[in-house]
Amino acid sequence: MIHNFNPGPAALPPAVIARAQAELADYHGTGMSILEMSHRSKEYEAINATAEAHLKALLGLGDDYRVLFMQGGASMQFALIPLNLLPAGGVAEYIVTGSWGEKAYEEAQRLGNTRLLASTAADGYRSLPDAEALTPDPQAAYLHITTNETIQGVQWPAELPELGSAPLVADMSSDFLARPFPAERFALMYAGAQKNLGPAGVTVVVIRQDLIERGRKDLPVIMRYATFAKNNSLYNTPPVFAVYMVNLVLEWIKEQGGLVAMAERNARKAAMVYEAIDSSNGFYAGHAAPEARSLMNVTFRLPSAELEKRFLSEAQAAGMVGLAGHRSVGGIRASLYNAVSPESAATLASFMREFAQRYG
Amino acid sequence: MIHNFNPGPAALPPAVIARAQAELADYHGTGMSILEMSHRSKEYEAINATAEAHLKALLGLGDDYRVLFMQGGASMQFALIPLNLLPAGGVAEYIVTGSWGEKAYEEAQRLGNTRLLASTAADGYRSLPDAEALTPDPQAAYLHITTNETIQGVQWPAELPELGSAPLVADMSSDFLARPFPAERFALMYAGAQKNLGPAGVTVVVIRQDLIERGRKDLPVIMRYATFAKNNSLYNTPPVFAVYMVNLVLEWIKEQGGLVAMAERNARKAAMVYEAIDSSNGFYAGHAAPEARSLMNVTFRLPSAELEKRFLSEAQAAGMVGLAGHRSVGGIRASLYNAVSPESAATLASFMREFAQRYG
Repeated sequence: MIHNFNPGPAALPPAVIARAQAELADYHGTGMSILEMSHRSKEYEAINATAEAHLKALLGLGDDYRVLFMQGGASMQFALIPLNLLPAGGVAEYIVTGSWGEKAYEEAQRLGNTRLLASTAADGYRSLPDAEALTPDPQAAYLHITTNETIQGVQWPAELPELGSAPLVADMSSDFLARPFPAERFALMYAGAQKNLGPAGVTVVVIRQDLIERGRKDLPVIMRYATFAKNNSLYNTPPVFAVYMVNLVLEWIKEQGGLVAMAERNARKAAMVYEAIDSSNGFYAGHAAPEARSLMNVTFRLPSAELEKRFLSEAQAAGMVGLAGHRSVGGIRASLYNAVSPESAATLASFMREFAQRYG
Repeated sequence: MIHNFNPGPAALPPAVIARAQAELADYHGTGMSILEMSHRSKEYEAINATAEAHLKALLGLGDDYRVLFMQGGASMQFALIPLNLLPAGGVAEYIVTGSWGEKAYEEAQRLGNTRLLASTAADGYRSLPDAEALTPDPQAAYLHITTNETIQGVQWPAELPELGSAPLVADMSSDFLARPFPAERFALMYAGAQKNLGPAGVTVVVIRQDLIERGRKDLPVIMRYATFAKNNSLYNTPPVFAVYMVNLVLEWIKEQGGLVAMAERNARKAAMVYEAIDSSNGFYAGHAAPEARSLMNVTFRLPSAELEKRFLSEAQAAGMVGLAGHRSVGGIRASLYNAVSPESAATLASFMREFAQRYG
């Protein structure tokens, strides 16, 4: 039994993997694998349409939004967002609360006029900015945030503070569909699939219709949101298998009880691991300030690099993988995405307590 | 038994699908699916490195080339090639022999100075240009060709005519690895995987080292070839499963005897279907001029749209799928990529003869 705490690509629901395996050689009696079926087939068009419908239902969104299945991950969106939505003479605002927000902001600086509305770099990305002290520009082309920072383990609350009236754009790669949230407050949400949604290889973009039309017309065809919207994500060959897997994961989320059930499950898991930190008398030092703690990525340090190395190797020996912190910051990171089971979180918390007793 | 003539995504070797299915739930004893493994794991890094090594071995290329695993398909390359390789003040030349070359050329026109060195649009894309009559500019930033046009079924010969001294760039999406060819004549080759190489979701780019360094430095990070080369295609999360599948297909090609064996197999299949056209007393009218015929996509018309509809439905009833011509041109198209078996080609040829007898 392996407990998979990988930061992404990450654990998938065992039932989803079992189903993908069972039907891999013959998709629904077609005599073909889904891997060798045309994206113009009625079978794939059904997957594509169902996945969009499931996503909009889970988010409670209507016809004023579209779901696009794109490629290139959040890193490609870091460029496509300013390319599409930041006109010459306009300004885009960014709130940076960790490494991914930094990258998004850097790419935008290369492509247009930007303003850093807030950054928590000074405190090592442990906290969230004081929203009441912010002065967002209502004329901004958009305001960009990162709802969860996987490397630092810092997450905005589901009910965001007031952030002004410019279109709100959010990188939700690592907490999309992890809890109910007011999706209609966002003009554009994007997420690489490989954390909460499926395997690597597809990027989900949920975009409000008015932003699609606002996009620049002089971009390469393949870089325009309008191209994907107009063609139902079938302008060119989509990553068929990845979208198929996302659709299976969305069905699994619905079966579990939707975003309310995910939130309950995720809160329970995170509570177990944070409790192991908080009851360790300082042996484990959490990175994030308590009020900014992520339910998805629990980041912490041990008293020494030697102990961290030992922690990782003993955890590995006990069947827990993917716990190393990001190479840019070190330490330990437990990623607790939707598909990670409460049993895995309990196993980790128990190991943490036992390890602290032995070495504390 | 289904005979899969899909134009892409297309047939995969049954042995590859069987292996992917067998190890989908537990990759090499790790207790995890390849779908949920980190792209920084030693297992995936081995897949990534092996796939690059297999490709270079099959193409006979050395250290002066790199293999990049990118996303977005040929359509994204249509933009990335001029963005990276066409400096302000430079000119890029295009030879257009079908619909895909047209799209590549259109995107380049949007992004820089271009010159249409030759086009066969006037004859409905049935032929190849007379290379001896061309005057390529040796100072061009690059010369772009499409080695096989899937929609029209027109293919350049493996031994290309002399095309001047500018760096040669080729869209090989639909005939990559289908036969031996002098790969060292090309500065950049690219191919969406979903025809000869694997499932949809990864684009293989083979690029000569000197072109990597020539790339523009002001592009978004994710759009630079240099970013992928420097990071071994691991700058951001790659499409893990698609690269894994490509690696399995490359191993299958090697086991079959490499590109020489693929060429023999592909020539045999195409000969069967073209023979059914040529012996039909004009019932089947091939689209491509005989000297430009593609070994990958055999395109032809029947005497009427009604007969074409009947052909497709009777073929479907007999287990042959994917034979409809591209929606932009109609007619019939049989795609005979590497993984399509000689038995499938023989079944189609036999059906064509029998159908012509009944309705001819």
